[in-house]
Amino acid sequence: MSFNIAKESGKKRVVVVGGGFGGLKLANELSGSDFQVILVDKNNYHQFPPLIYQVASAGLEPSSISFPFRKIFSKKKKDVYFRMGEARFIYPDRNILQTSIGKVEYDYLILAAGTTSNFFGNKHIEEEAIPMKTLSEAMGLRNALLSNFERSVTCATEQERRELLNIVVVGGGATGVEIAGALAEMKHYVLPKDYPDMDNNLLQIYLIEATDRLLSGMSMDSSRKAAEFLQEMGVNVCLGKKVLDYQDHEVLLEDGTSVPTRTFIWVSGVRANSIGNIPETSIGRGGRIKVDAFNRVEGLPNVFCIGDQCIMLNGDSEYPNGHPQLAQVAIQQGKLLADNLKRMEAGQELKPFRYRNLGSMATVGRNKAVAEFSKVKTQGWFAWFLWLVVHLRSILGVRNKINVLLNWMWSYLTYDRSFRLIVYARKAKEVVEREKREAEVHWGE
Amino acid sequence: MSFNIAKESGKKRVVVVGGGFGGLKLANELSGSDFQVILVDKNNYHQFPPLIYQVASAGLEPSSISFPFRKIFSKKKKDVYFRMGEARFIYPDRNILQTSIGKVEYDYLILAAGTTSNFFGNKHIEEEAIPMKTLSEAMGLRNALLSNFERSVTCATEQERRELLNIVVVGGGATGVEIAGALAEMKHYVLPKDYPDMDNNLLQIYLIEATDRLLSGMSMDSSRKAAEFLQEMGVNVCLGKKVLDYQDHEVLLEDGTSVPTRTFIWVSGVRANSIGNIPETSIGRGGRIKVDAFNRVEGLPNVFCIGDQCIMLNGDSEYPNGHPQLAQVAIQQGKLLADNLKRMEAGQELKPFRYRNLGSMATVGRNKAVAEFSKVKTQGWFAWFLWLVVHLRSILGVRNKINVLLNWMWSYLTYDRSFRLIVYARKAKEVVEREKREAEVHWGE
Repeated sequence: MSFNIAKESGKKRVVVVGGGFGGLKLANELSGSDFQVILVDKNNYHQFPPLIYQVASAGLEPSSISFPFRKIFSKKKKDVYFRMGEARFIYPDRNILQTSIGKVEYDYLILAAGTTSNFFGNKHIEEEAIPMKTLSEAMGLRNALLSNFERSVTCATEQERRELLNIVVVGGGATGVEIAGALAEMKHYVLPKDYPDMDNNLLQIYLIEATDRLLSGMSMDSSRKAAEFLQEMGVNVCLGKKVLDYQDHEVLLEDGTSVPTRTFIWVSGVRANSIGNIPETSIGRGGRIKVDAFNRVEGLPNVFCIGDQCIMLNGDSEYPNGHPQLAQVAIQQGKLLADNLKRMEAGQELKPFRYRNLGSMATVGRNKAVAEFSKVKTQGWFAWFLWLVVHLRSILGVRNKINVLLNWMWSYLTYDRSFRLIVYARKAKEVVEREKREAEVHWGE
Repeated sequence: MSFNIAKESGKKRVVVVGGGFGGLKLANELSGSDFQVILVDKNNYHQFPPLIYQVASAGLEPSSISFPFRKIFSKKKKDVYFRMGEARFIYPDRNILQTSIGKVEYDYLILAAGTTSNFFGNKHIEEEAIPMKTLSEAMGLRNALLSNFERSVTCATEQERRELLNIVVVGGGATGVEIAGALAEMKHYVLPKDYPDMDNNLLQIYLIEATDRLLSGMSMDSSRKAAEFLQEMGVNVCLGKKVLDYQDHEVLLEDGTSVPTRTFIWVSGVRANSIGNIPETSIGRGGRIKVDAFNRVEGLPNVFCIGDQCIMLNGDSEYPNGHPQLAQVAIQQGKLLADNLKRMEAGQELKPFRYRNLGSMATVGRNKAVAEFSKVKTQGWFAWFLWLVVHLRSILGVRNKINVLLNWMWSYLTYDRSFRLIVYARKAKEVVEREKREAEVHWGE
């Protein structure tokens, strides 16, 4: 296997690992410039994480919040190449990246591989919990939810019914708040119609957070309001509760209590994706790769890291301990790094990164959201409306925008969640075998 | 596990196995009448098979051609119950149906479980081929196709590239013709944009049919025209070629030749789904259950079978050897059986089934289709337009109709296939374990 891309004389090659917000921004900015850009991603599409919870709660289809890379690049100059593969490790002394589909040489390597769910070392939870970081996981959660509802109708004991109808969401960040809210709406508007013989009170949603507030990235005001919204909607908000383990369909808490459930959703934190051969000393908190103010990886002059995967310590004076892991940081770093690469080639001085905080927001339910910008805080329907507009604007592609808008309008008018199908794609044998082969690309040559 | 449905006094219970065209029609017709209806299906949704090929070729999303049963029945009287489960066998002497989710007693049992792919006993082909009967298989095919295209860019040898870019469709019925046509359009309109560095001529589509014509259910005229359309579109139509086996990425034909491919699509025939404890003598050709003119299973007075799963010999005088396995037959049988059940309860005489042939059609590509009705045959753009209208009308639900229409318009205008994502839902452990338990419900009590 190989990348099958010839080097162009006179053009330096930039290899970008990961086509999330940061990596895609960078690739787009460099297209048409004097670089040959190769984007490597394990998926063949760019996805829009802020709306993944709506896929999980059957409000949107995966295709509405994702976009094939080849479609993005097909309109660009032919200087941007896409390859579907997983980065494994780097040989910095020889400027080579090893991936599941072979090796590729780089002049500049940009790591933008984002994060994955953090189970804080608990293998047990990792095995049993349902994460919600990727489209694949969101579809898995949707299927599991619907299948648990179905089984609650036919199960043998009251105990099992309770386990099937209790939903536990661990993690009170934006994702946790949003999925808990979406599930509460499903409980109120969809399930009574779908399951007329189900006692709706049996379905209980728990949102468990270890610290004493939700949305720790936002103001106390927003945190309190989000909790209030959720409680109004019937969600059991449990603050200051630490999850120790999950055993025999029970979530065990540090205070000795437990919650029975077979839908154990884990959105409690993230860990940077790792790549082999980055010096141990360059790895910071949460597995994030330490970078300087120009997103350069410590000690590797032509390797950069941007977005959630990196941590910039002592760089941006307003954020001496690193930036929050948000889309805007990644996008701004991708943009700046593209400019800086061009500056390097032109022999100009590099510009250090300064994060411009555009604000943050989280939605809980219809007409219920919290939003804050540098000077303004707003809550309720206006925040909700803002949230819709901001997210709609950010989704890639006219068709996806239309799709999402139509779906939202439909859901708003009908109180329905349309995509309640339990379906798993059947994996062809050829694909299974190929995946096995590619998983076996190990360290070494 | 159990069905948890109490019998209502004075109401006879009709258990329907399978919610395809026939089963759903029957359930809908009986709702609001003097029966308690229980529909059992292994999926939680009704699907629309005629458009499954468009899901496989990335033109439609699964949700556009399917509809959750609970949504269908939520608006009906509460006399129709849905249970997700797989029928396993019957105890006709005790009027009990055993399923993966427990037993259920019936007064009338209606088998409407349809068909599955027929591999004619070749285990090897069954393992390796990609079927296209269900949404899950269609999604699997879409993923495999796209993943093969991706790998053709990075594979190591020319031989492998050829295998990855050759697509072999086995079976020249409507499904085979339609998927071959859809793939040919993808080749011409989508891939050159997505893969500017791919030699488009390397992608070859083969449609292999054992008999000497396509669309054997239609007139010679339509068969010839369909082949002509496909050839115009660059499909290699191979008639009179029998597939013997598939080995080392090669389809072996009876005439000694072979075609290398890693995308081996099997739409060559169907076999009725089986259910345990139906007397061997009641099973006819293709595993179909023999029924009389009232769709009654031979020897079992209160067990009926409708649609593709049954074969009515010597019933309908125009079709002494059984009806074609088409949606219209199933729908008409479902409708008549509902009426006949009501007649039985009223002590009236039953009406025998007479199939009213509404015509048949198949589409090959944009503005290219063949259609025939009792007196009229048409080919080309008008047939294509008719095909669109007929199928759009038949899809369940306003929202799905709008969705499909918008997608068709978009594809028609942009020549695009929008849903080019490779994604597999991650199966939660709880679901995996439940599936194992339910698979273990064996014969006996």
